[in-house]
Amino acid sequence: MFNKITLIGIGLIGSSIALAARQKNLAKHIAISTRSEKTLQEAKNLNLGDSYYSDVKQAVKNADLIILCTPVGVFENIMKTIAPSIKQGAIISDVGSVKAHVQKVISPLLPKGVHFVPAHPMAGTEYSGPSAGFPSLFEGRWCMLTPSENQSKMAIKKLSDFWRELGSQVEIMDAEHHDLIVAITSHVPHLIAYNIVGTASELETVSKSEVIKYSAGGFRDFTRIAASDPVMWRDVFLTNRDAVLDMLGRFLGDLDKLKIAVEKGDGAALEELFTRTRAIRKSIIEAGQETSDADFGRHV
Amino acid sequence: MFNKITLIGIGLIGSSIALAARQKNLAKHIAISTRSEKTLQEAKNLNLGDSYYSDVKQAVKNADLIILCTPVGVFENIMKTIAPSIKQGAIISDVGSVKAHVQKVISPLLPKGVHFVPAHPMAGTEYSGPSAGFPSLFEGRWCMLTPSENQSKMAIKKLSDFWRELGSQVEIMDAEHHDLIVAITSHVPHLIAYNIVGTASELETVSKSEVIKYSAGGFRDFTRIAASDPVMWRDVFLTNRDAVLDMLGRFLGDLDKLKIAVEKGDGAALEELFTRTRAIRKSIIEAGQETSDADFGRHV
Repeated sequence: MFNKITLIGIGLIGSSIALAARQKNLAKHIAISTRSEKTLQEAKNLNLGDSYYSDVKQAVKNADLIILCTPVGVFENIMKTIAPSIKQGAIISDVGSVKAHVQKVISPLLPKGVHFVPAHPMAGTEYSGPSAGFPSLFEGRWCMLTPSENQSKMAIKKLSDFWRELGSQVEIMDAEHHDLIVAITSHVPHLIAYNIVGTASELETVSKSEVIKYSAGGFRDFTRIAASDPVMWRDVFLTNRDAVLDMLGRFLGDLDKLKIAVEKGDGAALEELFTRTRAIRKSIIEAGQETSDADFGRHV
Repeated sequence: MFNKITLIGIGLIGSSIALAARQKNLAKHIAISTRSEKTLQEAKNLNLGDSYYSDVKQAVKNADLIILCTPVGVFENIMKTIAPSIKQGAIISDVGSVKAHVQKVISPLLPKGVHFVPAHPMAGTEYSGPSAGFPSLFEGRWCMLTPSENQSKMAIKKLSDFWRELGSQVEIMDAEHHDLIVAITSHVPHLIAYNIVGTASELETVSKSEVIKYSAGGFRDFTRIAASDPVMWRDVFLTNRDAVLDMLGRFLGDLDKLKIAVEKGDGAALEELFTRTRAIRKSIIEAGQETSDADFGRHV
């Protein structure tokens, strides 16, 4: 499908792309670049690619597809560095969790004749680094592409095909709308998970060891996404601020009403909400985005 | 261990106790009682016990151990009904998620010579009803007992042994302290999970079908506990109000600070929290209360 793919950044998502692209035979050559010598060595030991570079300018030479797989905050600097070395006709893409910001910082730095097709695979685990990747990560998950309106249809089709080959379903949408969707389906959930884990670990009336011991009543579920990569998530909240604050405001408005229902002992209001929310999980299972196994099929 | 155990209420927890007690041979006779004829028939079809009663007074006759496995809100009425039929020397227990309230409503109704040892197994799944139970549910989980200070040591020991035989670790503590612990490790997590699922399903800017489709970015995790039994959870919030509002207040105070960090773009504060919260999951895994498998070992 491609002669040469360059992956810049080789964490959970980058390493999973490398493994899946190799398995599906989507590239003759996979080049891997990362700033950290230690991470580069780790990627080499895991045999994730065909060539390894700490100099990102060297890594992108002659690549047909370049995918930015670093935290979003360094995209601008990387583009400034690699722009002169990108081949005419190449496709640049990324896997960032925010899209309007990415469009804003990358578009002005694009060399002429280079296609920019931003992407966001809705997939991941709580682990990070090159050893966290696995080739089936994207299977059955959605990948959202947010190309600008004047982008080459051919480049969009090629990247769509690439993600379908990796096992994903592909949807093309507007960057701003993407950012609203992920604010409610991913960013605010992470924010409140990080927050409750923070609250629980700093109480005086309940000790941290009690929180750990008795976590199976619900709390432990939240610790999974609150164990996600700190730098990646810092950058998400720095670059999708408006959509996150919008959705967080709605969450807080609803929580205020729920708090009043608890204060007043309004059992009917509580039961009504708790019955309504039950249905949505069923729909997610039916849509193939969740397991029907009890407790996620968790064994412990 | 017991001649006759009576389970009042035969949902997820009641049916799991029945199956585990049978498997471990902890009772010569297991009697099952529930108000709903349909549920009673279901329990019968599943062969969960030795005898089945819609009349709870009949069910408790000659029982050595009676366990209330219904939502907490009906405990008081059940006790009023069964009190005259309980055998001298019997142990009454329960599996309710709140303990100070249970102590308060049951203690005045206890016949003389009957031992009351309240219990709360920290275990469950998002499914409910008699068919949701399985005998290994309590294995490795904690069961908290909150007997009053003047309770018979023998009865406490007998119930502790029973829960240990079911596979649990047992801890004895004060009812008020129990209620604070579960407010932060279970009740507030459920409240915010119910709340975000409610918020997400009522947006105008993002459709419900988009929320379902793109739920794998974190949201779907919350739908699991937000699919828990509505009546059971209504009763939890009606009967552990003060501890829940205390912990919810702390959560909201912290969330307000986090919101300000997002508004101001304070990357250092975000990264500091996100790094700190990562450690606690590791401790929960080390304590044997969580799997180290990526994504809960979820297969979908």
